[in-house]
Amino acid sequence: MARKNLLYAQSGGVTPVINATACGVIETARNHRDQIGKVFAAKDGILGALREDLIDTSKETKSVVAGLRHTPGGAFGSCRYKLKSIEENLAEYERLIDVFAAHNIGYFLYNGGGDSADTAHKVSQIGKKLGYPIQCIGVPKTIDNDLPITDVCPGFPSVAKYVAVSIMEASLDVMSMASSSTKVFILEVMGRHAGWIAAAGGMAQRETGDPPHIILFPEVTFDEAAFLAKVETSVKKYGYCSIVVSEGVKNPDGQFLADAGTRDAFGHAQLGGVAPVVANLVKSKLGYKYHWAVSDYLQRSARHIASKVDAEQAYAVGKAAVDYCLQGKSGVMPVIERTSDKPFRWKIAEAKLSKIANREKKMPKGFITRDGFGITNRCRTYLEPLIRGEDYPPYDKQGLPKYVRIKGILVNKKLDEWSA
Amino acid sequence: MARKNLLYAQSGGVTPVINATACGVIETARNHRDQIGKVFAAKDGILGALREDLIDTSKETKSVVAGLRHTPGGAFGSCRYKLKSIEENLAEYERLIDVFAAHNIGYFLYNGGGDSADTAHKVSQIGKKLGYPIQCIGVPKTIDNDLPITDVCPGFPSVAKYVAVSIMEASLDVMSMASSSTKVFILEVMGRHAGWIAAAGGMAQRETGDPPHIILFPEVTFDEAAFLAKVETSVKKYGYCSIVVSEGVKNPDGQFLADAGTRDAFGHAQLGGVAPVVANLVKSKLGYKYHWAVSDYLQRSARHIASKVDAEQAYAVGKAAVDYCLQGKSGVMPVIERTSDKPFRWKIAEAKLSKIANREKKMPKGFITRDGFGITNRCRTYLEPLIRGEDYPPYDKQGLPKYVRIKGILVNKKLDEWSA
Repeated sequence: MARKNLLYAQSGGVTPVINATACGVIETARNHRDQIGKVFAAKDGILGALREDLIDTSKETKSVVAGLRHTPGGAFGSCRYKLKSIEENLAEYERLIDVFAAHNIGYFLYNGGGDSADTAHKVSQIGKKLGYPIQCIGVPKTIDNDLPITDVCPGFPSVAKYVAVSIMEASLDVMSMASSSTKVFILEVMGRHAGWIAAAGGMAQRETGDPPHIILFPEVTFDEAAFLAKVETSVKKYGYCSIVVSEGVKNPDGQFLADAGTRDAFGHAQLGGVAPVVANLVKSKLGYKYHWAVSDYLQRSARHIASKVDAEQAYAVGKAAVDYCLQGKSGVMPVIERTSDKPFRWKIAEAKLSKIANREKKMPKGFITRDGFGITNRCRTYLEPLIRGEDYPPYDKQGLPKYVRIKGILVNKKLDEWSA
Repeated sequence: MARKNLLYAQSGGVTPVINATACGVIETARNHRDQIGKVFAAKDGILGALREDLIDTSKETKSVVAGLRHTPGGAFGSCRYKLKSIEENLAEYERLIDVFAAHNIGYFLYNGGGDSADTAHKVSQIGKKLGYPIQCIGVPKTIDNDLPITDVCPGFPSVAKYVAVSIMEASLDVMSMASSSTKVFILEVMGRHAGWIAAAGGMAQRETGDPPHIILFPEVTFDEAAFLAKVETSVKKYGYCSIVVSEGVKNPDGQFLADAGTRDAFGHAQLGGVAPVVANLVKSKLGYKYHWAVSDYLQRSARHIASKVDAEQAYAVGKAAVDYCLQGKSGVMPVIERTSDKPFRWKIAEAKLSKIANREKKMPKGFITRDGFGITNRCRTYLEPLIRGEDYPPYDKQGLPKYVRIKGILVNKKLDEWSA
């Protein structure tokens, strides 16, 4: 029987290390040419699979594939597209199976979060029903760090390191001029539903008085009075106040502070931008001079300051996914299992997609301090090993990172055009 | 005659490498204990000198002083305080001389921009008049890169590297999802009067089509129609549009776009934040989904991605300033002279403070493309060597940079309290 080909697809928001996972997938598959045929990558995620836009990675050089390990963004493209339920839209699943059949695809690796795990799970089931058995493996990824079972989601540790380093550096800046200038600095970070990324800012704090002095979590309803009191105390005690705020912070009405906030010259509500809202609040109520930063995509693409542990885990889940294919597995996901905090040890473990799909892991209550403005030692114990080690990309003579670009050659289509 | 002491003061906004200059000053002075007594550092800049708040750097360990070389912020503190003219406020100058005399200070090193050069110049003159000759040396620093004569201002190249790397990384993120998600990304950078920092973003562009597709300079009046047309062309041609905008961009009325822009929930004008203004313009006129980032202090403190050339030059001007003291010089500033582009060669040259004081170096017209949205090859030739090389700080086992903190022990005061 002819060797089956493998289809790899990235899903949802990209991360600084999702391409390291792709690298793990492709390099591992290339080491088993006897069992696995070609590795195709869906262009722009699952949409590429539906459109039959399949990138032939065998056309990419060894050095470009190796370079994916240190290149941010999603080299093959990604998208935000959730397949409907089989009941609602069987046609989409049938189309996927048609594409698999047309290109002799026997392995489907879906690299994403909870939704993707759900999709991969369904595809594995429908395949059987339609008489085209396909091995579906989910591969974890999300900077939100909200997947269950796994100790951590590849992508998150690098964002965490970026946020911790950034708030540490910016705070040194503010501290040095606070006596006569800016007294309050606010850094906005991602995390609409979970405060994992905001919590990472807390890692910059080593001793009492160290910045950040305040962290605002989506899990904690914004208490204006308590917040302002804490800002004032910090400024009086330390001369300045350094704040990390999550984009997902809500006011007592359950409304995002960001939405409640700024309007532009045309009167449109301004998406993003909770930092300016908080900054203006501080200015109007306390009169302190402020500065604010919104890191937005910078935090999600800062491969130049990636976590070594993250880069290794991202590669490892890609490798493990291919190993699972070779072992005939399906409907599973390789996850990170922490076997020891000190010394930090981890290994790849197998989890059922049905157990991962559509479940969100919130920050444990015990990770946020009583006053709701900081992280506990339990949280530090969890986060600390994740941001350990640097994994710098190579730089060219011009002083910029050597990030690779793929050729992205598509295979010839064999099916009619797909219409959603 | 007793050895004279040296007073070092930092001025204005800090940089990722201003402490490297302090390190150069202190280490060089320590190598000449026979000629130079103690090195005092004014706490919080010139205000510390007026208040007689003098940090005794001889109390700092060798390793802490060495650590200043890779620590961002201003270790001894800085301030925004410009001495008035001698006519307006002779008392301030007399106070400085009193402090110098009280602590046997014979050398005054003022590390800052144009204003500081002016101050150092005046102090050197008034010293003679008042019968207390003091050697005043200006030391260049400013991320705005707007000092005359010097090829570059220490601090700028590291900010330039941060901006170039950041827009390169964020653009890879946007590119990978543009087909179904965000199509326009906007990064706001500093530079209220000069576009040097915004121009640095252009270094990420290697080939036609590379990001950033648009740079908005303070030197170029914002042309809404031309801008929107360029955004649309980029999205149609490349699938997305990556933009670097300087905080100092003005509309045809000469008003800052940022000020013209967002108001918060309380109706206050929002300081900073030209990025959201541009983003909302794009959304309202073209309907593209956007994301924006404001790097603010992050760009000015990102020592973790500092330019090696910058770190070396920052140290060199500190060392040279002390050498000038030993050579009996005064009223001068060590500046960077570029002796060759390819291969890049530079050396320290001597400039008169009177030639530096209160003069602003704008970006040459020939550095901005005809259409006003990009940088020319001449600009690249200038910028390229400056961001070359990485100079990573050491990291601790917890994965964070080993930034040092000084003890900051003050010398006993000998004068009455100063009142402004």
